[in-house]
Amino acid sequence: MAFVMIREAKEGDCGNILRLIRELAEYEKLSDQVKISEEALRADGFGETPFYHCLVAEILSAPGEPQGQGIGSKIIKKVAEVALDKGCSQLRLAVLDWNKRAMDLYKALGAQDLTEAEGWHCFRFEGEAMRELAGK
Amino acid sequence: MAFVMIREAKEGDCGNILRLIRELAEYEKLSDQVKISEEALRADGFGETPFYHCLVAEILSAPGEPQGQGIGSKIIKKVAEVALDKGCSQLRLAVLDWNKRAMDLYKALGAQDLTEAEGWHCFRFEGEAMRELAGK
Repeated sequence: MAFVMIREAKEGDCGNILRLIRELAEYEKLSDQVKISEEALRADGFGETPFYHCLVAEILSAPGEPQGQGIGSKIIKKVAEVALDKGCSQLRLAVLDWNKRAMDLYKALGAQDLTEAEGWHCFRFEGEAMRELAGK
Repeated sequence: MAFVMIREAKEGDCGNILRLIRELAEYEKLSDQVKISEEALRADGFGETPFYHCLVAEILSAPGEPQGQGIGSKIIKKVAEVALDKGCSQLRLAVLDWNKRAMDLYKALGAQDLTEAEGWHCFRFEGEAMRELAGK
Protein backbone atom coordinates (compact mmCIF):
# COMPACT_ATOMS: atom_id res chain seq x y z
CA MET A 1 0.00 0.00 0.00
CA ALA A 2 1.19 3.51 -0.80
CA PHE A 3 2.48 5.58 2.12
CA VAL A 4 1.00 9.07 2.35
CA MET A 5 2.59 11.83 4.42
CA ILE A 6 0.73 15.10 4.82
CA ARG A 7 2.82 18.12 5.75
CA GLU A 8 2.78 21.92 5.53
CA ALA A 9 3.80 23.25 2.14
CA LYS A 10 7.21 24.90 1.73
CA GLU A 11 8.06 27.71 -0.67
CA GLY A 12 9.88 25.19 -2.87
CA ASP A 13 6.59 23.31 -3.39
CA CYS A 14 5.03 26.22 -5.31
CA GLY A 15 5.96 24.84 -8.75
CA ASN A 16 4.17 21.57 -7.98
CA ILE A 17 1.25 23.38 -6.32
CA LEU A 18 0.74 25.44 -9.49
CA ARG A 19 0.89 22.25 -11.57
CA LEU A 20 -1.87 20.71 -9.42
CA ILE A 21 -3.97 23.90 -9.59
CA ARG A 22 -3.71 23.72 -13.40
CA GLU A 23 -4.60 20.00 -13.47
CA LEU A 24 -7.67 20.63 -11.29
CA ALA A 25 -8.74 23.59 -13.46
CA GLU A 26 -8.38 21.44 -16.56
CA TYR A 27 -10.60 18.76 -14.99
CA GLU A 28 -13.09 21.52 -14.07
CA LYS A 29 -12.98 22.91 -17.65
CA LEU A 30 -11.92 26.28 -16.20
CA SER A 31 -8.29 26.47 -17.33
CA ASP A 32 -8.79 30.04 -18.60
CA GLN A 33 -9.41 31.16 -15.00
CA VAL A 34 -5.92 30.20 -13.77
CA LYS A 35 -4.00 33.46 -13.93
CA ILE A 36 -1.67 32.99 -10.96
CA SER A 37 2.09 32.52 -11.47
CA GLU A 38 4.57 30.53 -9.38
CA GLU A 39 6.10 33.85 -8.25
CA ALA A 40 2.72 35.10 -6.99
CA LEU A 41 2.11 31.79 -5.17
CA ARG A 42 5.48 32.20 -3.45
CA ALA A 43 4.85 35.84 -2.52
CA ASP A 44 1.26 35.29 -1.32
CA GLY A 45 1.90 32.19 0.76
CA PHE A 46 5.36 32.70 2.18
CA GLY A 47 5.65 36.39 3.02
CA GLU A 48 5.35 38.04 6.42
CA THR A 49 1.53 37.87 6.48
CA PRO A 50 0.57 34.89 4.29
CA PHE A 51 -2.66 35.13 2.27
CA TYR A 52 -3.08 31.34 2.30
CA HIS A 53 -1.87 28.20 4.06
CA CYS A 54 -1.35 24.96 2.20
CA LEU A 55 -0.89 21.28 3.00
CA VAL A 56 0.72 18.85 0.58
CA ALA A 57 0.53 15.06 0.43
CA GLU A 58 3.75 13.21 -0.29
CA ILE A 59 3.14 9.76 -1.68
CA LEU A 60 5.62 6.95 -1.55
CA SER A 61 4.67 3.90 -3.55
CA ALA A 62 6.41 1.08 -5.35
CA PRO A 63 6.58 1.35 -9.16
CA GLY A 64 3.34 0.14 -10.73
CA GLU A 65 1.45 0.33 -7.44
CA PRO A 66 -1.92 2.08 -7.80
CA GLN A 67 -1.94 5.62 -6.44
CA GLY A 68 -4.57 8.02 -5.31
CA GLN A 69 -6.90 6.03 -3.07
CA GLY A 70 -8.03 8.03 -0.09
CA ILE A 71 -5.62 10.95 -0.43
CA GLY A 72 -8.48 13.45 -0.81
CA SER A 73 -10.10 12.22 2.41
CA LYS A 74 -6.77 12.24 4.26
CA ILE A 75 -6.08 15.85 3.26
CA ILE A 76 -9.61 17.02 4.17
CA LYS A 77 -9.31 15.32 7.57
CA LYS A 78 -5.98 17.02 8.18
CA VAL A 79 -7.44 20.41 7.18
CA ALA A 80 -10.28 19.85 9.69
CA GLU A 81 -7.74 19.01 12.40
CA VAL A 82 -5.62 22.11 11.70
CA ALA A 83 -8.76 24.28 11.50
CA LEU A 84 -10.05 23.09 14.90
CA ASP A 85 -6.59 23.63 16.42
CA LYS A 86 -6.65 27.22 15.14
CA GLY A 87 -10.10 27.83 16.64
CA CYS A 88 -12.17 27.64 13.44
CA SER A 89 -15.77 26.45 13.78
CA GLN A 90 -16.41 25.58 10.14
CA LEU A 91 -14.65 24.19 7.08
CA ARG A 92 -16.07 25.19 3.69
CA LEU A 93 -15.50 23.80 0.21
CA ALA A 94 -16.66 24.91 -3.24
CA VAL A 95 -17.58 22.21 -5.74
CA LEU A 96 -19.09 22.15 -9.26
CA ASP A 97 -22.58 20.63 -9.51
CA TRP A 98 -21.53 18.07 -12.15
CA ASN A 99 -18.62 16.82 -10.01
CA LYS A 100 -20.68 14.03 -8.45
CA ARG A 101 -17.60 12.15 -7.22
CA ALA A 102 -16.41 15.10 -5.13
CA MET A 103 -19.93 15.91 -3.89
CA ASP A 104 -20.53 12.30 -2.85
CA LEU A 105 -17.19 12.21 -1.02
CA TYR A 106 -17.85 15.46 0.89
CA LYS A 107 -21.36 14.27 1.85
CA ALA A 108 -20.02 10.88 2.92
CA LEU A 109 -17.51 12.68 5.15
CA GLY A 110 -20.33 14.65 6.81
CA ALA A 111 -20.55 17.92 4.85
CA GLN A 112 -23.81 19.70 4.05
CA ASP A 113 -24.53 21.19 0.61
CA LEU A 114 -25.48 24.75 1.63
CA THR A 115 -26.50 25.75 -1.89
CA GLU A 116 -29.00 22.87 -1.98
CA ALA A 117 -30.10 23.09 1.66
CA GLU A 118 -30.32 26.86 2.19
CA GLY A 119 -30.00 28.40 -1.27
CA TRP A 120 -26.59 30.07 -0.98
CA HIS A 121 -25.17 31.44 -4.24
CA CYS A 122 -21.58 32.51 -4.75
CA PHE A 123 -21.03 35.91 -6.44
CA ARG A 124 -17.74 37.14 -7.87
CA PHE A 125 -16.36 40.52 -8.91
CA GLU A 126 -13.12 40.43 -10.88
CA GLY A 127 -11.06 42.13 -13.59
CA GLU A 128 -12.51 45.24 -15.18
CA ALA A 129 -15.75 45.01 -13.14
CA MET A 130 -13.75 44.97 -9.91
CA ARG A 131 -11.53 47.89 -10.95
CA GLU A 132 -14.57 49.88 -12.02
CA LEU A 133 -16.28 49.10 -8.70
CA ALA A 134 -13.20 50.36 -6.85
CA GLY A 135 -13.01 53.47 -9.05
CA LYS A 136 -9.54 52.55 -10.32
CA MET B 1 -28.66 64.03 2.70
CA ALA B 2 -27.04 61.67 5.22
CA PHE B 3 -23.26 61.76 5.49
CA VAL B 4 -21.57 58.36 5.36
CA MET B 5 -18.00 57.76 6.49
CA ILE B 6 -16.42 54.35 5.93
CA ARG B 7 -13.48 53.43 8.14
CA GLU B 8 -11.62 50.40 9.49
CA ALA B 9 -13.32 48.77 12.46
CA LYS B 10 -11.81 49.21 15.93
CA GLU B 11 -11.99 46.68 18.75
CA GLY B 12 -14.58 48.86 20.45
CA ASP B 13 -16.93 48.38 17.48
CA CYS B 14 -17.34 44.64 18.17
CA GLY B 15 -20.55 45.07 20.18
CA ASN B 16 -22.18 46.90 17.27
CA ILE B 17 -20.72 44.49 14.72
CA LEU B 18 -22.29 41.56 16.60
CA ARG B 19 -25.62 43.42 16.70
CA LEU B 20 -25.48 43.85 12.90
CA ILE B 21 -24.49 40.19 12.38
CA ARG B 22 -27.57 39.21 14.44
CA GLU B 23 -29.85 41.60 12.51
CA LEU B 24 -28.63 40.18 9.19
CA ALA B 25 -29.09 36.59 10.40
CA GLU B 26 -32.62 37.43 11.53
CA TYR B 27 -33.40 38.83 8.07
CA GLU B 28 -31.89 35.66 6.54
CA LYS B 29 -33.97 33.44 8.89
CA LEU B 30 -30.72 31.88 10.14
CA SER B 31 -30.50 33.30 13.67
CA ASP B 32 -29.77 29.86 15.11
CA GLN B 33 -26.45 29.85 13.20
CA VAL B 34 -25.03 32.87 15.05
CA LYS B 35 -22.87 31.32 17.73
CA ILE B 36 -20.10 33.92 17.95
CA SER B 37 -19.70 36.14 21.03
CA GLU B 38 -18.41 39.70 21.28
CA GLU B 39 -15.31 38.32 23.06
CA ALA B 40 -14.57 35.96 20.15
CA LEU B 41 -15.05 38.80 17.64
CA ARG B 42 -12.52 40.86 19.60
CA ALA B 43 -10.01 38.02 19.85
CA ASP B 44 -10.35 36.91 16.20
CA GLY B 45 -10.17 40.36 14.62
CA PHE B 46 -7.79 42.28 16.84
CA GLY B 47 -5.06 39.86 17.89
CA GLU B 48 -1.57 39.57 16.49
CA THR B 49 -2.66 37.67 13.34
CA PRO B 50 -6.27 38.72 12.70
CA PHE B 51 -8.67 36.13 11.22
CA TYR B 52 -10.77 38.88 9.60
CA HIS B 53 -10.72 42.53 8.64
CA CYS B 54 -13.79 44.70 8.90
CA LEU B 55 -15.00 48.07 7.61
CA VAL B 56 -17.78 50.01 9.32
CA ALA B 57 -19.98 52.80 7.96
CA GLU B 58 -20.66 55.73 10.27
CA ILE B 59 -23.80 57.58 9.32
CA LEU B 60 -24.55 61.14 10.30
CA SER B 61 -28.06 62.31 9.54
CA ALA B 62 -30.54 64.84 10.88
CA PRO B 63 -33.39 63.42 13.02
CA GLY B 64 -36.20 62.15 10.79
CA GLU B 65 -33.97 62.06 7.71
CA PRO B 66 -34.23 58.79 5.74
CA GLN B 67 -31.25 56.48 6.25
CA GLY B 68 -29.78 53.59 4.40
CA GLN B 69 -29.70 54.59 0.74
CA GLY B 70 -26.55 53.50 -0.98
CA ILE B 71 -24.59 52.41 2.09
CA GLY B 72 -24.34 48.80 0.85
CA SER B 73 -22.88 49.97 -2.46
CA LYS B 74 -20.47 52.35 -0.74
CA ILE B 75 -19.14 49.58 1.53
CA ILE B 76 -18.77 47.08 -1.35
CA LYS B 77 -16.88 49.71 -3.39
CA LYS B 78 -14.57 50.38 -0.48
CA VAL B 79 -13.95 46.64 0.00
CA ALA B 80 -13.04 46.38 -3.71
CA GLU B 81 -10.63 49.31 -3.32
CA VAL B 82 -8.94 47.80 -0.25
CA ALA B 83 -8.79 44.36 -1.92
CA LEU B 84 -7.08 45.72 -5.06
CA ASP B 85 -4.63 47.68 -2.88
CA LYS B 86 -3.74 44.44 -1.08
CA GLY B 87 -3.18 42.62 -4.40
CA CYS B 88 -6.41 40.58 -4.49
CA SER B 89 -7.75 39.69 -7.94
CA GLN B 90 -11.32 38.81 -6.91
CA LEU B 91 -14.02 39.80 -4.44
CA ARG B 92 -16.57 37.13 -3.53
CA LEU B 93 -19.94 37.35 -1.79
CA ALA B 94 -22.41 34.72 -0.60
CA VAL B 95 -26.11 35.48 -0.98
CA LEU B 96 -29.36 33.55 -0.44
CA ASP B 97 -31.34 32.76 -3.60
CA TRP B 98 -34.52 34.43 -2.30
CA ASN B 99 -32.68 37.69 -1.46
CA LYS B 100 -33.50 39.27 -4.82
CA ARG B 101 -32.67 42.79 -3.61
CA ALA B 102 -29.09 41.84 -2.74
CA MET B 103 -28.66 39.72 -5.88
CA ASP B 104 -29.93 42.55 -8.09
CA LEU B 105 -27.60 45.03 -6.40
CA TYR B 106 -24.51 42.80 -6.80
CA LYS B 107 -25.36 42.15 -10.46
CA ALA B 108 -25.94 45.86 -11.09
CA LEU B 109 -22.51 46.55 -9.60
CA GLY B 110 -20.92 44.06 -12.01
CA ALA B 111 -20.79 40.75 -10.11
CA GLN B 112 -21.39 37.37 -11.72
CA ASP B 113 -23.53 34.67 -10.07
CA LEU B 114 -21.07 31.74 -10.14
CA THR B 115 -23.63 29.24 -8.86
CA GLU B 116 -25.93 30.10 -11.75
CA ALA B 117 -23.22 30.55 -14.40
CA GLU B 118 -20.86 27.69 -13.58
CA GLY B 119 -22.70 25.52 -11.06
CA TRP B 120 -20.62 26.14 -7.93
CA HIS B 121 -22.08 24.75 -4.71
CA CYS B 122 -20.91 25.68 -1.24
CA PHE B 123 -20.29 22.78 1.19
CA ARG B 124 -19.85 23.09 4.95
CA PHE B 125 -18.48 20.88 7.72
CA GLU B 126 -19.21 22.02 11.26
CA GLY B 127 -19.90 20.93 14.81
CA GLU B 128 -19.91 17.20 15.50
CA ALA B 129 -19.29 16.31 11.80
CA MET B 130 -16.17 18.49 11.77
CA ARG B 131 -14.84 17.07 15.03
CA GLU B 132 -15.47 13.53 13.81
CA LEU B 133 -13.70 14.33 10.52
CA ALA B 134 -10.70 15.62 12.47
CA GLY B 135 -10.75 12.58 14.76
CA LYS B 136 -11.26 14.72 17.88
